[in-house]
Amino acid sequence: MMPDRDDPYLLTPGPLTTSEATKQAMVGDWGSRDGRFLALTARVRDRLTALACGGEDYACVLLQGSGTFAVEAMLGSLVPADGRCLILVNGAYGRRMVRICEIIGRAYAVHETAEDTPPEPARLDALLAEDETIGHVVAVHCETTTGILNPIEDIAAVCEARGRSLLIDAMSSFGALPFDLGRIPCEAVAASANKCLEGVPGIGFVVARTEALAATRGNAPSLSLDLHDQWRGFEATGEWRFPPPTQVLAALGQALDEHAAEGGVAARGARYSANCRVLVEGMRGLGFETFLAGALQAPIIVTFRAPSDPRFEFARFYNALAERGYLIYPGKLTQAASFRIGCIGRIDEAGMRDVVAAVAEVTGELGFDPAAKLSST
Amino acid sequence: MMPDRDDPYLLTPGPLTTSEATKQAMVGDWGSRDGRFLALTARVRDRLTALACGGEDYACVLLQGSGTFAVEAMLGSLVPADGRCLILVNGAYGRRMVRICEIIGRAYAVHETAEDTPPEPARLDALLAEDETIGHVVAVHCETTTGILNPIEDIAAVCEARGRSLLIDAMSSFGALPFDLGRIPCEAVAASANKCLEGVPGIGFVVARTEALAATRGNAPSLSLDLHDQWRGFEATGEWRFPPPTQVLAALGQALDEHAAEGGVAARGARYSANCRVLVEGMRGLGFETFLAGALQAPIIVTFRAPSDPRFEFARFYNALAERGYLIYPGKLTQAASFRIGCIGRIDEAGMRDVVAAVAEVTGELGFDPAAKLSST
Repeated sequence: MMPDRDDPYLLTPGPLTTSEATKQAMVGDWGSRDGRFLALTARVRDRLTALACGGEDYACVLLQGSGTFAVEAMLGSLVPADGRCLILVNGAYGRRMVRICEIIGRAYAVHETAEDTPPEPARLDALLAEDETIGHVVAVHCETTTGILNPIEDIAAVCEARGRSLLIDAMSSFGALPFDLGRIPCEAVAASANKCLEGVPGIGFVVARTEALAATRGNAPSLSLDLHDQWRGFEATGEWRFPPPTQVLAALGQALDEHAAEGGVAARGARYSANCRVLVEGMRGLGFETFLAGALQAPIIVTFRAPSDPRFEFARFYNALAERGYLIYPGKLTQAASFRIGCIGRIDEAGMRDVVAAVAEVTGELGFDPAAKLSST
Repeated sequence: MMPDRDDPYLLTPGPLTTSEATKQAMVGDWGSRDGRFLALTARVRDRLTALACGGEDYACVLLQGSGTFAVEAMLGSLVPADGRCLILVNGAYGRRMVRICEIIGRAYAVHETAEDTPPEPARLDALLAEDETIGHVVAVHCETTTGILNPIEDIAAVCEARGRSLLIDAMSSFGALPFDLGRIPCEAVAASANKCLEGVPGIGFVVARTEALAATRGNAPSLSLDLHDQWRGFEATGEWRFPPPTQVLAALGQALDEHAAEGGVAARGARYSANCRVLVEGMRGLGFETFLAGALQAPIIVTFRAPSDPRFEFARFYNALAERGYLIYPGKLTQAASFRIGCIGRIDEAGMRDVVAAVAEVTGELGFDPAAKLSST
């Protein structure tokens, strides 16, 4: 799996490197209310619901914009105006949902754990037992801040046992980590086109229980981000309420075909796991230290501690890798200097070995010691 | 100017037919925080501000999503939470802004005129004189419902004289009809990539007075649709707050180059005016009747009355034209059956003559009388 053009490899949480066929699928014009495009819309919606193993009682609502738009639409549409939710936070994306609830005026409580610590299901259970006013629990599947995998099945089991609804941000895991609505009972899960599905950015989506969608008419504090209305539009006419990014949807259709051809979630996840292994082993071999212990690390994006050697400077490191065709990502930790390298997108083990080789080369060129530790961390 | 591929001509209010080079510009992967993409973002923002003749005191805020997302962001961010606006309505897009204000909780008054009647500046002046609580006037430049051109310069002059702020939805006119912020003083104007700029859908934007943007921190009732935050992000780092549709921006960059190469707003407007003339004359020659009198008709999209002949059926008419490679648009009038044909996108006079010829052919095939009138209209 080699890049088909001179574009750099995007080793980020998205947008990612896409296949040549996915890029070429954008080269066309579609009438957004024409039959050909409506058929594509229906096919993509069905495929996304099926990827979450959602049956007849679930529907996929596509939404223009980035994944955050879909998450905001999910929270604003599904948490009742007079409801209250408990947000599980161990990174920036959990915190972002807190911020959204604050802005859109949804009452919330927060259960925060350290960025390297998943929430404990027993603690969640106790919190729900204590507070009957919490109707919804809000969780992140894979927290892109660190790359940590949260115990979503256990969280879902606790919520179900306590009779509370669960809303999941599965932005950076959907399509690569198993997500079976039969085993992870939840009201809704949000994700986007340009992460593990390897489409291009511009469309987010929420797979939600139709019963919940039906009950939320008039609840959203936004016209554009109203999941109920958007869903009703799809169901009534097959059309998007407002002009969709037609070319982005065409790319997503192609990307979903390739996802299926590769072998679905299992095969996509296996490729990313192999990428992650090669990356982590290679980087450790060079002396770099990962932020997370192995068991907590999702095969999506890896956070490395920034070496404390003064010769290491993120901007120079980034630029030297960019010159070699690899775009990495800055860190987002609150408590430690770090950088991130993604394992997702159109790249495989051989590509990841090249990434490690490039890092080795750059490390030598810049002359820093990857194993140098900040005394404060 | 011929279509470069087998795609149909999109004779709609958007998405539209784009140039081959604009489509090809999407074929690539961009890191959304990488220098190359940030330079593109800066260039597009500057070009859009310049297209509105906005000087140093204006800035362009790009936003993921459709044009409606940008309009909602403009209203939610710029009308203060305790403010009140007067919305000028003579079609569906004016009504949509009423709906947005209702949902996001911005107090409003409405001045509605018939769909074939622009608001009268003198009446607006009287309304503003009567009601000191109105801080913002909200207007549509070209109402896509009918294709009517509203007297935006006169509206702006009244607002300025009365010391009220003006927010403009110029969705379907921006880039084709002159829009000079020097002559149309306003606080903000919203539009999108996929109308007269001939980009692809997925990005809207607002060109706004920086002073107004700076004053609205914390005002928006949405995280995703917060113009202030989005603007601060661009100014601080050059980055979008949330992953942008990178390929859509690449297409917009190319489309703006082509807009300039064609001769800017004047040349784009002249081509569309010629398209409109050929269309209206041709359709009238066949017996069809336009909804609007000539002087009110913007050269963007033309509303035709649906013939009352029972042999005319919109779906059959649409399909027969679609088979010939032309996608037209249903009507959106509240009081009369109609259909619409757009004059915008990558099409010229020769193309419009082909459209008229196709309509003539289809009219003969379906055997209806275009001149048949509904007695009720």
